Amino acid sequence: MKINQYIPAIDWISDYGSTQLKGDLTAGLTVGIMLIPQGMAYAMIAGLPPIYGLYASTLPLIIYALLGTSRQLAVGPVAMVSLLTATGIGAMAEADSESYISLAIALALIVGLIQFLLGAFRLGFLVSFLSHPVISGFTSAAALIIGVSQLKHLLGIKLSGGHRVHEIIIEAIQQINQIHLPTFLLGIGGIVLIVVLKMINRRIPGLLIAVFLAILVVWVFNLAETGVSIVGSVPQGLPSLQWPGLEMSTVGALMPTALAIALVSFMESYAVAKAIQSKHKDYKIDANQELVALGLANIGGATFQSYPVTGGFSRTAVNDEAGAKTGMASLVSALLIILTLLFLTPLFHFLPNAILASVIMVAVFSLIDVKEIKHLWRTNRYDLAMLIVTFVATLILGIEQGIALGVILSLAIIIWKTTRPHVAELGQVPGTEFYRNIKRFKQVKAKRDLLIIRFDAQLYFANIGYFRDQLEEMISTKGDELKAIIINAESINSIDSTAMHALEGIVKELRGRSIEIYMSGVIGPVRDALVKTNLLDLIGEKNFFMSVHDAVEYHESPTSQGSTHKDITLQSNVQE
Amino acid sequence: MKINQYIPAIDWISDYGSTQLKGDLTAGLTVGIMLIPQGMAYAMIAGLPPIYGLYASTLPLIIYALLGTSRQLAVGPVAMVSLLTATGIGAMAEADSESYISLAIALALIVGLIQFLLGAFRLGFLVSFLSHPVISGFTSAAALIIGVSQLKHLLGIKLSGGHRVHEIIIEAIQQINQIHLPTFLLGIGGIVLIVVLKMINRRIPGLLIAVFLAILVVWVFNLAETGVSIVGSVPQGLPSLQWPGLEMSTVGALMPTALAIALVSFMESYAVAKAIQSKHKDYKIDANQELVALGLANIGGATFQSYPVTGGFSRTAVNDEAGAKTGMASLVSALLIILTLLFLTPLFHFLPNAILASVIMVAVFSLIDVKEIKHLWRTNRYDLAMLIVTFVATLILGIEQGIALGVILSLAIIIWKTTRPHVAELGQVPGTEFYRNIKRFKQVKAKRDLLIIRFDAQLYFANIGYFRDQLEEMISTKGDELKAIIINAESINSIDSTAMHALEGIVKELRGRSIEIYMSGVIGPVRDALVKTNLLDLIGEKNFFMSVHDAVEYHESPTSQGSTHKDITLQSNVQE
Repeated sequence: MKINQYIPAIDWISDYGSTQLKGDLTAGLTVGIMLIPQGMAYAMIAGLPPIYGLYASTLPLIIYALLGTSRQLAVGPVAMVSLLTATGIGAMAEADSESYISLAIALALIVGLIQFLLGAFRLGFLVSFLSHPVISGFTSAAALIIGVSQLKHLLGIKLSGGHRVHEIIIEAIQQINQIHLPTFLLGIGGIVLIVVLKMINRRIPGLLIAVFLAILVVWVFNLAETGVSIVGSVPQGLPSLQWPGLEMSTVGALMPTALAIALVSFMESYAVAKAIQSKHKDYKIDANQELVALGLANIGGATFQSYPVTGGFSRTAVNDEAGAKTGMASLVSALLIILTLLFLTPLFHFLPNAILASVIMVAVFSLIDVKEIKHLWRTNRYDLAMLIVTFVATLILGIEQGIALGVILSLAIIIWKTTRPHVAELGQVPGTEFYRNIKRFKQVKAKRDLLIIRFDAQLYFANIGYFRDQLEEMISTKGDELKAIIINAESINSIDSTAMHALEGIVKELRGRSIEIYMSGVIGPVRDALVKTNLLDLIGEKNFFMSVHDAVEYHESPTSQGSTHKDITLQSNVQE
Repeated sequence: MKINQYIPAIDWISDYGSTQLKGDLTAGLTVGIMLIPQGMAYAMIAGLPPIYGLYASTLPLIIYALLGTSRQLAVGPVAMVSLLTATGIGAMAEADSESYISLAIALALIVGLIQFLLGAFRLGFLVSFLSHPVISGFTSAAALIIGVSQLKHLLGIKLSGGHRVHEIIIEAIQQINQIHLPTFLLGIGGIVLIVVLKMINRRIPGLLIAVFLAILVVWVFNLAETGVSIVGSVPQGLPSLQWPGLEMSTVGALMPTALAIALVSFMESYAVAKAIQSKHKDYKIDANQELVALGLANIGGATFQSYPVTGGFSRTAVNDEAGAKTGMASLVSALLIILTLLFLTPLFHFLPNAILASVIMVAVFSLIDVKEIKHLWRTNRYDLAMLIVTFVATLILGIEQGIALGVILSLAIIIWKTTRPHVAELGQVPGTEFYRNIKRFKQVKAKRDLLIIRFDAQLYFANIGYFRDQLEEMISTKGDELKAIIINAESINSIDSTAMHALEGIVKELRGRSIEIYMSGVIGPVRDALVKTNLLDLIGEKNFFMSVHDAVEYHESPTSQGSTHKDITLQSNVQE
């Protein structure tokens, strides 16, 4: 029981059979074939030699297959994380250089540590705070940045390496007469081929076909000599065990990027994993175990020359469609990459960078979410504004500033929403013992001398001020006739010390104005907290009631005691 | 009507009379007399020449008196903000130097701009997110740091200027044989005198008496020549109009400190203002107008050589106790300081720094909140842990790191709480049309084929995942007998696009499993949102009901239509 939690793979290994194997083999091979060009292309986004994309497609896949809770998630290099890697360490070292590579690997280690610790301390809930429009705006902008950043490879020109879309486009236009025609034709040809093959049949491995055709063309026509930029000699063999060197100053400098990657990559991965899981139901996704698994995949990967990886959107979808049943599919994919590294790397010598740019451009184009913009235009302009602000900020200010803004916007909304829960004034439903929102039902009327309120949230520091303000407003609306207030506390499932202090102040102040306080439906833990702080004594135990009706009856016949009600229909059950 | 909102002082000016004047005069003079020593002492905490504490006690008080919504809040230099000023700019320039002074003034300008903009954009709600234990832990640690930082003045020794308590104490102990005895005796004598006078009668201006006695002693016994450090020549006259020079690089460097001060100073000020207001009731506190008023007080102050100010805890309490009725009291205090600057500054030549240290130590000692620690120990260990973590982090890591940790801790709790609202499964109260939480009432039972749930929060990106998880868990508990789900949406007062997407997915998936979805009590704005996104059509308009009972009846006689219920007791009222 216990070990399954830490190594979820045990669940599927224990009853693994030929049914699963068939699906896993097909899916694993399909994804592996997709991974070869994608891995190399995404490494290029990250500013790394393409082979590092393959290194990142070995050990991390194996680790995730064993420790992850999703059975279809395809882990490996992804476009967004590669872009974040490039922007983060681009300012610290020259792309492709020794120190650049070791920074990218150190980054994987730090990202992995952050994710592992978040998972180990059960802090997975923290990442549920980014709103969908913010993520969508950010993703679209990042996709645009990635696409535009590949212009240099597609056009065969040199660009200064900025990460702002308008700067890159202006630079590219200025160099329009320096476009290298063979490169450009290869790149455009690649894009057209991939798109057309995809339209004919989604099962055709278009990426791989484009890559091998391009290699063939470059080799046969000797295009490298005309100036087509090629990958060149690729080291053969598996990545080697190298513990990434980490100085404190490096850790500090990489930290903002690492935090951004840890957050963004987990959110992407978790969202995909949940979406796929909802189609299967034979297992559950656990956010904290996902963090642990991705964290260890990154840590383990970093010790074997891998840069940051995560669960990717497109490959996971393909994996699932191709019939993946368990993590075995990922093991098959990893094996294919390992075989490629061992035997096929000489083939990649003539691989033109332009075709990798084609692979990237086709992949990121689908991330630009125009449909969501149209949808929000019709349904929720407020969320649309958030999407656009994040989109524009990411394009103009930069990718990390875009994330930071998205985080701040989302937190601001959470604070706004959480500080303003629903508060209702209740009145009696005629002829019954029940009390409902006076604003919502015609027959329900409030009394002049009695205020019954229901606060639909736990009471704590973030909303106690709002609670007090609302209460004051309702009291002043009632005017001088008000004799008593009943707080229906059924929805209040916890109360913290800040709220308790405030409540004490409110009760004392109302007593000073001769307004009695009753509480109804107070649940177990809240009652315990009231006892500990003596607030129960302050309010008076006789002023606590099971239901609003009991409190109203008591209030209207003040000589009677709580125990003498004619009709106590509701009895307390287990205290939650 | 409108202008009162921007200049709240108009409200009290319009019916100002001798009753108010009497209280305001007494209070204004009392606070002014307190401000002279406190202002100079707090400037010393900030690393500024004492006279700058008096400068900061002129124009800002006048601006706040006119624009602030509190009528008793005493604005001016406070200990915490002074400490933040010192830690923030201490690394950028030498204390007391020209450039240090101009940085402190530039800081006031930036703090003012931040506060003004937050208020102008109605973002005052954002500052309600710090939890009380976090503030308490931070305040106690800051008080300790401030107290210990004055050891050098109290002992007449030189310290290297660190801001960590243990470092300062170790350094002080190492220099124990260099203590300057006359300085030490003056300082200790000052502390004893202030405390004793306070114990005899809180109305005695103990601070001022101690200050003038100390000046007298230093002058008569010529103590300055024995090495007692004195304030020295103090420029006479009012602060002059000097627009603070601001380069972009300076703004960037000051920004973290400015944000911390803007946040902490507003929270202190707002908390005090609210506490005092609750005793008066003849006016209201508006968070956004408070931000505007404090912001303009800082901006205006900065143009007349003032460093950051805010509403202070102790002087506001004294102001109120002494009978302040309106902002006139603050105008009187400001006038007293102006007269002091014009005529009395030569008196301060012989003022020993040690007595200012006494003033500070007595003031900050009361900020160390041992009572709250004891209280939380008995009532809420979880909140106590937060307090202690913030306290220790502030002491060990530093004051700005302490704030940052407090902010992160508070946000983490908000996210935790807001992502986990109260969800209840409802069942019918026998013999009635009403439905209550099955966990809380004995007679209320759930049915096997029907799940009725109530979600006590607005549905949005931060909690939609929790909503789905809870729903799934309840569904799997019900098992295969489940035929329909009724979502009681009475407490859901808004729904965003992320939640809408998820809801669509949930409905489609449940349909796929032949589980019918009903919604009851959906309120106006949520219904509008459902219409816009076609979710109303997807669920089916006939599946929407006013009450849970209507939905249950419909479900149990599936041939009947919503309009043919025997007994529709509740009719819709105005749509909220």
